[in-house]
Amino acid sequence: MEKKNIAILGSTGSIGTQALDVAREFYDKFEISVLTASNNADLLIKQALEFNPKIVVIINEALYSNVKEALAHTTIEVMSGVEALVDAVELEEIDVVLNAIVGSAGLRPTVRAITCGKDIALANKETLVVSGELIMNLVKEHNVKMLPVDSEHSAIFQCLVGEPSPIEKIYLTASGGPFRGWTKDQLQHVGKAQALKHPNWSMGAKITIDSASLMNKGLEVIEAKWLFDLEINQIDVIVHPQSIIHSIVQFEDGSMKAQMGLPDMKLPIQYALTYPERYKNTFKRFDFIDYTNFSFEKPDLTTFRNLQLAYDALAEGGNRCCVLNAANEVAVAAFLEDKVSFLGMSSILEETLCHIKNTNNLSLDDYIAYDSESRIVAQDLINKIKHKN
Amino acid sequence: MEKKNIAILGSTGSIGTQALDVAREFYDKFEISVLTASNNADLLIKQALEFNPKIVVIINEALYSNVKEALAHTTIEVMSGVEALVDAVELEEIDVVLNAIVGSAGLRPTVRAITCGKDIALANKETLVVSGELIMNLVKEHNVKMLPVDSEHSAIFQCLVGEPSPIEKIYLTASGGPFRGWTKDQLQHVGKAQALKHPNWSMGAKITIDSASLMNKGLEVIEAKWLFDLEINQIDVIVHPQSIIHSIVQFEDGSMKAQMGLPDMKLPIQYALTYPERYKNTFKRFDFIDYTNFSFEKPDLTTFRNLQLAYDALAEGGNRCCVLNAANEVAVAAFLEDKVSFLGMSSILEETLCHIKNTNNLSLDDYIAYDSESRIVAQDLINKIKHKN
Repeated sequence: MEKKNIAILGSTGSIGTQALDVAREFYDKFEISVLTASNNADLLIKQALEFNPKIVVIINEALYSNVKEALAHTTIEVMSGVEALVDAVELEEIDVVLNAIVGSAGLRPTVRAITCGKDIALANKETLVVSGELIMNLVKEHNVKMLPVDSEHSAIFQCLVGEPSPIEKIYLTASGGPFRGWTKDQLQHVGKAQALKHPNWSMGAKITIDSASLMNKGLEVIEAKWLFDLEINQIDVIVHPQSIIHSIVQFEDGSMKAQMGLPDMKLPIQYALTYPERYKNTFKRFDFIDYTNFSFEKPDLTTFRNLQLAYDALAEGGNRCCVLNAANEVAVAAFLEDKVSFLGMSSILEETLCHIKNTNNLSLDDYIAYDSESRIVAQDLINKIKHKN
Repeated sequence: MEKKNIAILGSTGSIGTQALDVAREFYDKFEISVLTASNNADLLIKQALEFNPKIVVIINEALYSNVKEALAHTTIEVMSGVEALVDAVELEEIDVVLNAIVGSAGLRPTVRAITCGKDIALANKETLVVSGELIMNLVKEHNVKMLPVDSEHSAIFQCLVGEPSPIEKIYLTASGGPFRGWTKDQLQHVGKAQALKHPNWSMGAKITIDSASLMNKGLEVIEAKWLFDLEINQIDVIVHPQSIIHSIVQFEDGSMKAQMGLPDMKLPIQYALTYPERYKNTFKRFDFIDYTNFSFEKPDLTTFRNLQLAYDALAEGGNRCCVLNAANEVAVAAFLEDKVSFLGMSSILEETLCHIKNTNNLSLDDYIAYDSESRIVAQDLINKIKHKN
């Protein structure tokens, strides 16, 4: 069998490094063609020396000479900057682009990869949150595969394999994060150290904060709408603290299929890279001895307002999800710098949505413009809080 | 779309009547061609008048004139006796034979239907327990579909749809029955009224007793081995008292798929009749409001010996599963007549297995002969108990 050629965008992040763990497990099946990172030049160099890709891209141009020098004795082409990242996905030999970039910065490389006819393994949910309809139309037009890497969407995708029938409903499961069951009073003074302690999943900082605020589940609801072509009322969220059932599809006959397993991102990453095949691996298996109980509860949309905001944005359409997502990226960054409180993040989102008028029929450039504008508005709001304090 | 023509063997039993509920739900999709019953002439007549099949068979010949007379004003052909039952499946127009007969009496009609090129919807697990290898070879040879109706095997079958990869392992879920957690002492004096009270499933008497003794799960382990071509160590049983997860497949990448839903036999019956399609129905849907908790525990093979006996019989091969099944049918019938105690049933099985020598390379006639011999031995053992008392 010929090896599958993979570009990993964001190779030094949580998903990127776990994707390389998968590549190590199947060194005879995958060829890593492209590696890219924003700032972690040291790890990028180390990965490049191990996997010998055709191209590496370090986004931060100040780090270019570091990387260039360290790889001078190799045949690896070193590039720098955002445009280089977007161009790198065009490399002829690439079969699948794994987009593991954090935030809406992932949008343009996804679009470029699709228009070049590459299959997409999508860990960057913001791509679909910002402009899902546009992206999915491109996927159809260029006849490429959109392979979800989020564990929930991978679960739905796996449950749909071979099923000729429409979906009646899906349940996206949510761990509930570290603050499940907490009241608004209790959440008043939580800091980033607490919010970064996810009970089940090992993930990057941004998504871990989003998990704590249920924003992540909100983004996933939006992502699911576009990936699986659903109406809002077909998408339910159910809190399942053990994170073993990764999501559930209910078909029109009432039968449901769930995909399950240990909370290990290597599994959905591997599936996206091997679909429709499954390769035997040595990863730890689920055992009922360790899990004698699965529990389920409704999410608390009053305390965790972000999930409700996501449902509302999706219902309103237009630029709402784009604005919500951009404001959230700014709010999470500010929370991680102790510049906004945990509950204050939701207020930033709401106020940003109020400041920017909704419009419809948007192009990719429109979305990128709304994304920028929303960031400025959100940042202003945060700066004002700072001044007040 | 042309209607699918269905023969229902055992139409007055629990599965048979629920299959007719499914047929009522989709009167424009299914045509009922054959209805058969052992003794319940009144219900058979009622069903025949409603569904107007080509043929009805009443096995009990003493009831023939009753049925014949009641249907005299119709064009329905009325037949009687076991041979008529076996012949009825040959009817040209039949697409699927739903075998809902109880016990090893289901074996011969299954074989005849397969050799006539009919797809089989199999609720009669004893067919595969008695002679699974032989049956599955016939299925391959005649290129028909073997569609499981047992909820657990339907679950596995549904989870395998569209999957190109081998199974690593399956988990058959078990409710644990009405005596889950009971000790041998507590089970010493339980009567049929208690054993017939299944906590979740509404089923016939024989399978309900088998559920209480875990024999049903043992028979299902054997059935799964043949249906899905598995090794014994690939088949695990896990007790799940809520009966929402109907069974689980673990693939070679460690990913697991579960099929879930309310414990309603109409769902797997419908799926077997509509596979690979799913038709939208009005049956009640699962709701997490009613089930906030799924629990799991290991089965107790020391107290409930029948499940261990089934694993052992499967490991030994030859005539063991056939003998075990026949002895169990006799033991359950005796328990329902208060002639053997609940725990005494296991002893009947063990002693019958001891009395009959194991042999290999058996034909269908050999299996039928061992089935008969085992029944005589088991009945003798029961008669001796009676005399002792």
